[in-house]
Amino acid sequence: MRSHILRAGSSSLDDLAMIETDEPRPGPGEVLVRVRACSLNYRDQAIVTGHYFGGKVPHDQVPLSDGAGEVVETGDGATRFKAGDRVMSSFFLNWQEGPPRPDAGPALGAPGAPGMLAEYVVLPERALVPMAANLSFEEAATLPCAGVTAWNGLTLGAAPLRPGQDVLLLGTGGVSILALQIAAAGGANILITSSSDDKLARAQALGAHSLINYREVEQWGQEAAARTGRGGVDKVIEVGGFGTLPLSMQAVGWGGEIAMIGVLTRGGDNAPHPLMIKGASLRGIMVGSRAMAIDLNRAIEAADIHPVIDKVFPFEEAAEAYRYQASPELFGKVVIAV
Amino acid sequence: MRSHILRAGSSSLDDLAMIETDEPRPGPGEVLVRVRACSLNYRDQAIVTGHYFGGKVPHDQVPLSDGAGEVVETGDGATRFKAGDRVMSSFFLNWQEGPPRPDAGPALGAPGAPGMLAEYVVLPERALVPMAANLSFEEAATLPCAGVTAWNGLTLGAAPLRPGQDVLLLGTGGVSILALQIAAAGGANILITSSSDDKLARAQALGAHSLINYREVEQWGQEAAARTGRGGVDKVIEVGGFGTLPLSMQAVGWGGEIAMIGVLTRGGDNAPHPLMIKGASLRGIMVGSRAMAIDLNRAIEAADIHPVIDKVFPFEEAAEAYRYQASPELFGKVVIAV
Amino acid sequence: MRSHILRAGSSSLDDLAMIETDEPRPGPGEVLVRVRACSLNYRDQAIVTGHYFGGKVPHDQVPLSDGAGEVVETGDGATRFKAGDRVMSSFFLNWQEGPPRPDAGPALGAPGAPGMLAEYVVLPERALVPMAANLSFEEAATLPCAGVTAWNGLTLGAAPLRPGQDVLLLGTGGVSILALQIAAAGGANILITSSSDDKLARAQALGAHSLINYREVEQWGQEAAARTGRGGVDKVIEVGGFGTLPLSMQAVGWGGEIAMIGVLTRGGDNAPHPLMIKGASLRGIMVGSRAMAIDLNRAIEAADIHPVIDKVFPFEEAAEAYRYQASPELFGKVVIAV
Amino acid sequence: MRSHILRAGSSSLDDLAMIETDEPRPGPGEVLVRVRACSLNYRDQAIVTGHYFGGKVPHDQVPLSDGAGEVVETGDGATRFKAGDRVMSSFFLNWQEGPPRPDAGPALGAPGAPGMLAEYVVLPERALVPMAANLSFEEAATLPCAGVTAWNGLTLGAAPLRPGQDVLLLGTGGVSILALQIAAAGGANILITSSSDDKLARAQALGAHSLINYREVEQWGQEAAARTGRGGVDKVIEVGGFGTLPLSMQAVGWGGEIAMIGVLTRGGDNAPHPLMIKGASLRGIMVGSRAMAIDLNRAIEAADIHPVIDKVFPFEEAAEAYRYQASPELFGKVVIAV
Repeated sequence: MRSHILRAGSSSLDDLAMIETDEPRPGPGEVLVRVRACSLNYRDQAIVTGHYFGGKVPHDQVPLSDGAGEVVETGDGATRFKAGDRVMSSFFLNWQEGPPRPDAGPALGAPGAPGMLAEYVVLPERALVPMAANLSFEEAATLPCAGVTAWNGLTLGAAPLRPGQDVLLLGTGGVSILALQIAAAGGANILITSSSDDKLARAQALGAHSLINYREVEQWGQEAAARTGRGGVDKVIEVGGFGTLPLSMQAVGWGGEIAMIGVLTRGGDNAPHPLMIKGASLRGIMVGSRAMAIDLNRAIEAADIHPVIDKVFPFEEAAEAYRYQASPELFGKVVIAV
Repeated sequence: MRSHILRAGSSSLDDLAMIETDEPRPGPGEVLVRVRACSLNYRDQAIVTGHYFGGKVPHDQVPLSDGAGEVVETGDGATRFKAGDRVMSSFFLNWQEGPPRPDAGPALGAPGAPGMLAEYVVLPERALVPMAANLSFEEAATLPCAGVTAWNGLTLGAAPLRPGQDVLLLGTGGVSILALQIAAAGGANILITSSSDDKLARAQALGAHSLINYREVEQWGQEAAARTGRGGVDKVIEVGGFGTLPLSMQAVGWGGEIAMIGVLTRGGDNAPHPLMIKGASLRGIMVGSRAMAIDLNRAIEAADIHPVIDKVFPFEEAAEAYRYQASPELFGKVVIAV
Repeated sequence: MRSHILRAGSSSLDDLAMIETDEPRPGPGEVLVRVRACSLNYRDQAIVTGHYFGGKVPHDQVPLSDGAGEVVETGDGATRFKAGDRVMSSFFLNWQEGPPRPDAGPALGAPGAPGMLAEYVVLPERALVPMAANLSFEEAATLPCAGVTAWNGLTLGAAPLRPGQDVLLLGTGGVSILALQIAAAGGANILITSSSDDKLARAQALGAHSLINYREVEQWGQEAAARTGRGGVDKVIEVGGFGTLPLSMQAVGWGGEIAMIGVLTRGGDNAPHPLMIKGASLRGIMVGSRAMAIDLNRAIEAADIHPVIDKVFPFEEAAEAYRYQASPELFGKVVIAV
Repeated sequence: MRSHILRAGSSSLDDLAMIETDEPRPGPGEVLVRVRACSLNYRDQAIVTGHYFGGKVPHDQVPLSDGAGEVVETGDGATRFKAGDRVMSSFFLNWQEGPPRPDAGPALGAPGAPGMLAEYVVLPERALVPMAANLSFEEAATLPCAGVTAWNGLTLGAAPLRPGQDVLLLGTGGVSILALQIAAAGGANILITSSSDDKLARAQALGAHSLINYREVEQWGQEAAARTGRGGVDKVIEVGGFGTLPLSMQAVGWGGEIAMIGVLTRGGDNAPHPLMIKGASLRGIMVGSRAMAIDLNRAIEAADIHPVIDKVFPFEEAAEAYRYQASPELFGKVVIAV
């Protein structure tokens, strides 16, 4: 079978290589999956360049946490799936359910765990989730990292998603557009920022109510707060990093929550003064549990959500997919068909 | 101005009479409203016949808790509204926000509080809520009792509404159809029962996913549980009274909640045995607070919900409206235009 | 080694027998425990007489869910414990954490799972919990069923334990006295009923604030509500079965919760009318998860709680322990030293 | 009657003066209180120097939010209190209950609201709370700002107080010592920092479990996390301002919460990176609602908490009280007897 690997010590996409290996076999409690599609996330870029937790990959590493495919074979004692089942990966090997925990990791596609960018992968059954019935493999492949992150940020914490809630989204990347689709399915009042009127129009078509071009409205935090008529939004899905956080703190309202995503971001002046005035919260988000992935798929089925895919690359063009995903052009998710 | 009153000691609709009185004036903290539409609830029938809390009405009573109209004039110190504002009534005079409380009442249209079935009414400003911008007076008039009840049942308690949640609705009366519209806006997976395939088809058009004709499926509780594939639904909006409760307890799933509505119901064997097996809850619902009414209106605006009105009667035919609302034909709400 | 078994088809304590068997060995993921103490619960009586879920035990069954002891040896891949660790059993084999679930069982001491009434037992490591450092084996043995039940009822649901909360306890059996100790550690205002002034005095010494002799005050539900000065208590730990439930519904207050324990109880008229008036909840409790057991032990350590043991029996007198536990004399837990 | 005022434009304690005025009379909905004790908070220092919200006081201002006393007389329509009732002030004039809100203020002792440093004060009845029965006036006077702040931080948000929870307290000022007393009553495992071994010993006597002298342990954040054995504490009551926040972010554990107090603090590098790793939250705290004050008093009664008073000053020495409260010597609250 074919897979891509990052060579030990990888520091750039030059270290990404396609190789041939034997097809793996499932051990006890494991499942062999024929991968049909993968998707890319910002953290995958950081792994390539050695800027992820722990630095450069110490051994050859199959990358990517996100994939979907078909079950081929199950090992002894693996009872949750059978051959032919359509499944997607679960981001953390060990976070099954419940609150955040120190022993959640490792995450797929990083040292200590398999990656999905291969024709076949063996995973413990606890690291797989049944696909929503209404999704294609390519659509399902967009969910394990970005989808679960958006779900965690929106539906949990101090201001769980509910109809009529004000939700502010920043930009049109993978997490933001999945959050837009989930928030729209949940009846929220959605505000979104972008530097492109064209992208804002596409966001509106997906259900956004209120559009802010941050090139035109530099103080988009205050603008978002003003548009609610309630002193601020209930929830910010903050994916902009510490650079945008001060404005997100302007945008959030009384008792609201900033769901803070992007553990790899650095720097900035982030005095949480506005949170104190408003009794608001900032909650750190680092993807989520297998149980959240299952709940997300229930929502996707009930509301017939189809994740927005920006572009699909063939397996052989994995490096191009990485490059495209790093560009500022993004609207939704980048997928690699396997 | 004209109003309807229930004469002191009212025991039937024969005691409902249209009268002429002087137009009232707002005192300190009060607001004068020109009523444009009212709606009927089951509790209004009980007040007519003397089966509401406290028995027969002791004095002439303008009936109905639910109405919408325009602000005409505000009294000293009333600052929340101004002439021309479109408002709806709030069910309880004193339940502003927070958890249930002993001193919530009285409720409008019952002893100790004004009723809405009049051309003009004076209410304390705390008993009024701004109308959702997208609603007509007739639509807004459907919300104070049935809409807030549905909102309370769905969005609070042990299993708050969220996308993908399984919600079971019983029948097609006012509360159930409003709950259907809210749950659909919230991305829920909706199951609904009725004795009529025609009504089930109408429910499907409003967003219901799974239809159960309880004439054909007597064990609809077990059937609903089976259809979820998860051992039961997350939420039952139980409006059937103690007669249907045992089957609702079959329908509810692990960790789920029965939101129990219909404080005027009586009788039945209701041993909560299934709740104990499943770690499920039963929560009593008695309408809700002003804050819930405000949140409901936010949801109605964001998701552009338009409450389903079964039939509109003119002011002069109030008694006919009562009779129609008591029939089993209902699909949604009965409104009286003022 | 020695153990007690209930013979297949057991219908009375005559079917309880002490036998000699080989000491078991731990398989993969398993742990061998030298049991040092067990405790009895009402459900254990039902298993003896064949009135538990599924009827009479189909095969010889080592009984009891509750025990504590020392780890002797661990199997391959069992990493959470090492020889010498002091551990207690976890009630359900498969409920690790999160909300109630259909696949929680089987429970220890019932068909499909090992029981603790033996000198040695082999359990999967996920069915063991580290003992609180401040407890003896006999004290720790009281917790897996009754302690976790009390913890679940008190700290979760619609009215989680917090300082100043009104908690009503019924009688002085194992769950109630453990709930008393936990609620006292949590700063609650505790009301308790008993038919014995002597037991009430002992409850007061353990931290109860308000004592009700239900022989003298037949309407103890109304009495408890009146004593709060707030229309009712925040939480009832309802262990009396459906016979006492109507009075517990009188006792519970606005927005409060009845934590309903005793899945083996039957009968009674339980119309939840008072819950509807008061916006109160009834939540079914069936013990709890391993995560709850861990949280309970944290509380036991922090507040230095020592569970009240009514009487300790030697291993050879297991049948006497059962008989004593079934008597109405109980104050706290019955333990068998191993 | 006598009162103290800050003269318009006050910039130092030189602008604090004792004056004689007529005794006020209660208007509609108001209550006349004979003040018996007041307490000081950090925000009161900021008001004196003109560094509170809005800058220097524009008019003569009676200072202090916190006081307790007896009801002398009630105005028309004021029904919650009667002459002789023992009451304490509620910090915000308009935050009755529910989540944080933009219209909570003004707060007592600041522009737009009465202050408590007077022999008599007239307040709307909604700005008064019944005193806990077990408290003296001096004890009750410590609660409106610092006590409610501690209660809000501990019992609400992402990690509500419960037995066994790890709580980290910073220093021995008013909020921290009240939080210590509440957390001890709630069965928490309490860690506390101070630069003084003597103060740490006093904290231990009040129920603290784990003592950290931050002069000796500079990395007290990591130390606190290590001592839990769980990767961090469940709750930090953060009163140190933005200077200590980075270390509090080290101390907080997976899914835990930093309750951030001290809205007047400024500066610092506060990148919330550790919160993202750990799925933890930071919640801004700005005192709390009247409903929280009532709940706090319930806890104080049930657990018989007596707030720690550092020093009591006579009414004539108000300026000395301010000076003492600003010193680093504090252990608990500073009170002015009236």
